[in-house]
Amino acid sequence: MATDRLDRVRRRMDEVGVDVLLLSLGADLPWLTGYTAMPLERLTMLVLPGDDDATLVIPALEAPRVAERPDAFSLRPWDELQDPVGIVADLVGSARRLAVSDRTWATFLLGLQRALPDASWQAASGVTSPLRAVKDAVEIEALAAASAAADRVAGALLAGDIPLIGRQERDVSAELGRRLREEGHDQVNFAIVGSGPNSASPHHHPGEREIQAGEAVVCDFGGTMAGYCSDITRTVFTGEPPREFRDLYTVLERAQASAVAAAVTGTPCQDVDQVARHIIDDAGFGAHFIHRTGHGIGLEEHEDPYLVGGNVEPLQAGHAFSVEPGIYLAGRFGARIEDIVVATSSGPRSLNSADHGLHVVEA
Amino acid sequence: MATDRLDRVRRRMDEVGVDVLLLSLGADLPWLTGYTAMPLERLTMLVLPGDDDATLVIPALEAPRVAERPDAFSLRPWDELQDPVGIVADLVGSARRLAVSDRTWATFLLGLQRALPDASWQAASGVTSPLRAVKDAVEIEALAAASAAADRVAGALLAGDIPLIGRQERDVSAELGRRLREEGHDQVNFAIVGSGPNSASPHHHPGEREIQAGEAVVCDFGGTMAGYCSDITRTVFTGEPPREFRDLYTVLERAQASAVAAAVTGTPCQDVDQVARHIIDDAGFGAHFIHRTGHGIGLEEHEDPYLVGGNVEPLQAGHAFSVEPGIYLAGRFGARIEDIVVATSSGPRSLNSADHGLHVVEA
Repeated sequence: MATDRLDRVRRRMDEVGVDVLLLSLGADLPWLTGYTAMPLERLTMLVLPGDDDATLVIPALEAPRVAERPDAFSLRPWDELQDPVGIVADLVGSARRLAVSDRTWATFLLGLQRALPDASWQAASGVTSPLRAVKDAVEIEALAAASAAADRVAGALLAGDIPLIGRQERDVSAELGRRLREEGHDQVNFAIVGSGPNSASPHHHPGEREIQAGEAVVCDFGGTMAGYCSDITRTVFTGEPPREFRDLYTVLERAQASAVAAAVTGTPCQDVDQVARHIIDDAGFGAHFIHRTGHGIGLEEHEDPYLVGGNVEPLQAGHAFSVEPGIYLAGRFGARIEDIVVATSSGPRSLNSADHGLHVVEA
Repeated sequence: MATDRLDRVRRRMDEVGVDVLLLSLGADLPWLTGYTAMPLERLTMLVLPGDDDATLVIPALEAPRVAERPDAFSLRPWDELQDPVGIVADLVGSARRLAVSDRTWATFLLGLQRALPDASWQAASGVTSPLRAVKDAVEIEALAAASAAADRVAGALLAGDIPLIGRQERDVSAELGRRLREEGHDQVNFAIVGSGPNSASPHHHPGEREIQAGEAVVCDFGGTMAGYCSDITRTVFTGEPPREFRDLYTVLERAQASAVAAAVTGTPCQDVDQVARHIIDDAGFGAHFIHRTGHGIGLEEHEDPYLVGGNVEPLQAGHAFSVEPGIYLAGRFGARIEDIVVATSSGPRSLNSADHGLHVVEA
């Protein structure tokens, strides 16, 4: 697997004109080598020339963490008195066209630019992203397993098994995280709980607000299971919803289902966004759908392809992404529905199956 | 508070020759504004000119997360169809000497460099780090509270209240994290559990290995409580330790205590490292102490000042840092002892008080 990916990366480096790929933080490195760099001030960086062997520059004290793969790379541990930027620059040598992983810390890029003043730089995603975006069968099953686990937590939410009324948002958030772990996740990446007016803040940070009866509660949570991410949103109401919320929700449910159905291979990503947006616009809520329709998902929670205006890239079989329109009436309430979907040659396959209807939770 | 910090940052920008500070990921932004950027592909960046008002460029869907501080900055939300790098570049205008927060994603720095081809760049830590490294009284008490919470978890470990024998490392790691939360932490940042031969891997990733009787177990854990970090290491033995381990531990305990005692204001950071290193060297374990003696701690787990060879910076009152020598015999066993210490005008103040002696845990 690693060798096949390395071969494909090297072919693409040749196509796009990159001499050396430099991978630090982010998913490119584990995707290629199985090793994830620690997000710390000691630099870990894979130096991957298009035409030579790869070297993993790594702090000596972290070298024992690496499962070595002599077919893929050799190790170059550095000790505390050495300069890892200088070591990387030496390995780059006279190569000029360099690509650095998108999430590499700016301080390391600045150091490398000083050490290699004649180099030209680009983001590594220009090389890796189109390759990583198309998931193989093993990856899709890993995503499906993570989504199924998230579905079980969502099912408990919809069934009222997770009490809401009278609890602080942050306590509900902690319970969603705990349940993700119990369902097999290795890591919880986020668990948004936005209640009442906070349900209109799409990336609300769950806090001390106590959930009341008669409120919308947006729950958006996900984590990592066997390396691949889950991400699901369901919105419930703690009591009988007012007519206006029911109407909003009906529009949203239709927009979300229509966008999923539109996620057919060959369709430009922005067209899927437009399907949801038109329905929400036509219902008069256009100004209240303030984010894109979705993001790719895989080793990272957010990666290519993005379902957003301006992205004309056509969906390919193996693309995995969220479909998550939302409608937010500032200061009052909001709602979002999100599933993970894979584009396949036989049409869109939703990896989430938790019910989409508006559920009333009276607990 | 924020205004005072802003004033000090602007004075230092003037001193070191920085026209505009650009803050994204990392602790500089929350230290100045109270707001922490989400580590996502949508750019959040504070644009802080030395001589003009500051602007927080932020994704529109995250704007509701911000507690506004009109005295400190104004908000510039951007929607999904806008280019945040272009917005930042416009705000920078004709300024040339720019500093960008160290953990900003490389992809954003590359975009800014394309948009501002005449600018010169440096890492923001050159401006902020000496200011952030000196903690005020409120910050020191926050660190002390986090350390006291970590001490209670360490106390449970030393007392044998956390069963080890027969459990997987990752289960013990999860329990350490759970206990940190129960003791008041908002977030668990790491919980290393290295048993048997894994105790010789300083940054071991706790896995499925089952802890046996008669082994060294290094437990190094920390998290964030009310914004400030804890970080403590204790090493226990599951049964009667062999003579060789006892001897190693005795050396280590002396090295750690001596380094703490040496952390007097005015002492160059590297001298504290040398105190621990000489004791370990003299006992014949020099080649097995493969990392620096410590790192600063505050809003981030690792920040300035670093207690490492080459750092001649003198300790100042208010510097907070770990003192954590270790000795690692590859393939056999290792040990580390770590406390958080603050340099004060009346000498080093250890924020951790969990016992340092070698404890036998037979559970």
